[in-house]
Amino acid sequence: MGLTIGVDVGGTKVAAGVVDERGQIIEKLRQFTPAASPDETAEVIAAVVTDLLTRHQVDAVGIGVAGFVDQTRSTVLFAPNLAWRDEPVKKLVEERIGRPVVVENDANAAAWAETKLGAARGQHDVIMITVGTGIGAGIVLDGRLYRGRWGSAGEPGHYRVVPDGRLCGCGNRGCWEQYASGSALVAEAREFSRRSPGAAVRLLQLGGGSPEGIDGPAVTKAAREGDSGALRCFEIVGSWLGAGLADLAAILDPGCFVVGGGVSEAGNLLLSPARTAYHEGLTGNSYRQYADVRLAELGSDAGLIGAADLARNG
Amino acid sequence: MGLTIGVDVGGTKVAAGVVDERGQIIEKLRQFTPAASPDETAEVIAAVVTDLLTRHQVDAVGIGVAGFVDQTRSTVLFAPNLAWRDEPVKKLVEERIGRPVVVENDANAAAWAETKLGAARGQHDVIMITVGTGIGAGIVLDGRLYRGRWGSAGEPGHYRVVPDGRLCGCGNRGCWEQYASGSALVAEAREFSRRSPGAAVRLLQLGGGSPEGIDGPAVTKAAREGDSGALRCFEIVGSWLGAGLADLAAILDPGCFVVGGGVSEAGNLLLSPARTAYHEGLTGNSYRQYADVRLAELGSDAGLIGAADLARNG
Repeated sequence: MGLTIGVDVGGTKVAAGVVDERGQIIEKLRQFTPAASPDETAEVIAAVVTDLLTRHQVDAVGIGVAGFVDQTRSTVLFAPNLAWRDEPVKKLVEERIGRPVVVENDANAAAWAETKLGAARGQHDVIMITVGTGIGAGIVLDGRLYRGRWGSAGEPGHYRVVPDGRLCGCGNRGCWEQYASGSALVAEAREFSRRSPGAAVRLLQLGGGSPEGIDGPAVTKAAREGDSGALRCFEIVGSWLGAGLADLAAILDPGCFVVGGGVSEAGNLLLSPARTAYHEGLTGNSYRQYADVRLAELGSDAGLIGAADLARNG
Repeated sequence: MGLTIGVDVGGTKVAAGVVDERGQIIEKLRQFTPAASPDETAEVIAAVVTDLLTRHQVDAVGIGVAGFVDQTRSTVLFAPNLAWRDEPVKKLVEERIGRPVVVENDANAAAWAETKLGAARGQHDVIMITVGTGIGAGIVLDGRLYRGRWGSAGEPGHYRVVPDGRLCGCGNRGCWEQYASGSALVAEAREFSRRSPGAAVRLLQLGGGSPEGIDGPAVTKAAREGDSGALRCFEIVGSWLGAGLADLAAILDPGCFVVGGGVSEAGNLLLSPARTAYHEGLTGNSYRQYADVRLAELGSDAGLIGAADLARNG
C-alpha cells in the first residue's frame, strides 16, 4: 500500500492530506468545518477526500477527530467541538467515498505519528502529551496504540491533580489540564498582571494594556525576552506538566514522553521545568531510569499523518 | 505443560506451591525469609522448590517478589522488604534447581492470576489494585501483562493525589497509598479516636483502650457492627480509592478493576464508597461506560498462582 489519506477534523477546519509511507505529505487541502451539522461535517470530509482522489491513487482513509471514538474505530461517541454524538462516521464517509475508513481520536493519531515517524521513532512505550488549550494524549504500549476497553483511554488531561481544585469543562474539579495547559499559562499571566501590574509591564504591553489581552504567544514572547514574570508562569505550568509525567511514569513506566501542541512551541521554556519536576517527582527515582521527555517533531500535521498511517497499518 | 511451581517471596515468609493449569494448588510449603541476606533468601527459595520437585513433575518456576523487577524478568532491582538490590534472582535460583525461572513483581503476578483464573476471567483490560499496608497494582492490557519500558509499570500507589500531601515511604508527598490503604484506614480511625474519644468508644475498646491499639481488623469489626465512626473511616478511605480508580480510568479505560489485598476482606465496606466515588469522578461519565469494580477471588494465593501461570505461559 503506497499512499493513504489522513483527515484531521477540528471544530473550525477540516484538513486532509495525501501521505506516503514515510509520512511525507504529498498534497493537503483545507475546508471550514460546518460543526453544527453532523451530516454536513461528513459531507465536507467526503468532498475534500473525493477531490484528492481525482489526483492520487489512494487505498484507505484515516480520520482523526477531537473526541471520544469507540473501540471499533467506527463511531464518534462525543466530540465537544462538533455536533457528533454517537455518529457512525466510518459508515457515513465510506458510503460517500467508496474506500475503507478508520476513525481515531486525534491525539491518539498524533501519538502514533510521533512514535512511528517522529520524535519517538524506535521506541515501543510512548506517551504523547499535547499541550494546547487543554491537554490531549495518546498512549503507545508494546508498539501498539492503546485504546482501552471502550476506546476512551488516553485522557490524562482529566485525571485529578488537586482535590477540590479548579473547575474543569468536563464538570470535575482539579483536572490536570486546568494546571498544565495553555489556558493555565495564560490564566497565570493574567492573574499576575492583575495583582502586580508594576512587575508585569511587558506582559501588559504585549496584551494591549489589559490583563485580558494577554495570550499564549504574548507570554512566550515576554519569556523569550527574559521577562521574569513570564518566565515564572512557564516554570509554574511546566512544573505541573512534569509532576503529571511523574504520575504517568509511576503507572506506565514509558520509555519516552513526547510533548506537542501549541504551547510546546515555547520549547525549553516549557520543557526544562517539566523535566526538573518529572525527575524530582518520579517515585523510586534512585533505582530506576528516567524516560526521555522530547519535543514533538511533526507539529500540527501529526494528527493527519498519524491518521493516514493508521489507515495503512491499522 | 502440566504443573508449574509458583513462589511468593515476602519480607517475612516464602510460600511455594505446585499449581495446575486451572490454578489449583496441589501442594504448598512455607518458610521464614532470611530477608537480611540476599544469598540466603535465594537459598531458601531453592530449598523449598527442590523439596516440591521430589514429589512433583514440574517444568518451570515463577517467582513473585514485592519489589521492582527488570523488564527481562531476571533481576530484582530493588525490594523494600528484602536485601535484594540489583540481584540476579533468576540466575541464582536456576543454578540451584536446574529448571527455567521467571521473576515477576508480586502485584503483577496477582493481577495476572485474577485476570486468567479469578475475578476478571474473560476480560482483556484489567487493573488490579491490592489494598494492604500500601497499594500494589498490576496492569493487564490487551490480554497481556504490561510491564513498562524498564519493568516498573504498575505503581499507581505512588502517583500523587494531593500536592504537598502526606509524606510517603518513597520519599514523595501525597502518594495515593497514603490515602487509600490499610495504613490510611488505621491512621484515620486512630486520629478520630484521639480527637473524639466519646464517639469512638467501641473503636477504643477494640484497640485495648488506646488509639495506638486500633488496627485494621478492629476498624472492620466495628464497622460491621454498625459503628458510625468506623463506617466513616471506610467511607473516607473508600472514596480516595474510588477517586484513584477514576484517574486510572481516565488514563487507561480498563474493562474491569479488581480490588484485592487485606483491606478488601472488608468487602462492600470498602467497595461501596469506592464505586460511588469512581462513578462520580470518572470524566465524561455521561457518554462512556463504567468499568466493573470487583472483589478479588483468589485471596492471598493470587501472587503464587499468578507466578506459576506466568512460568507456564510467559
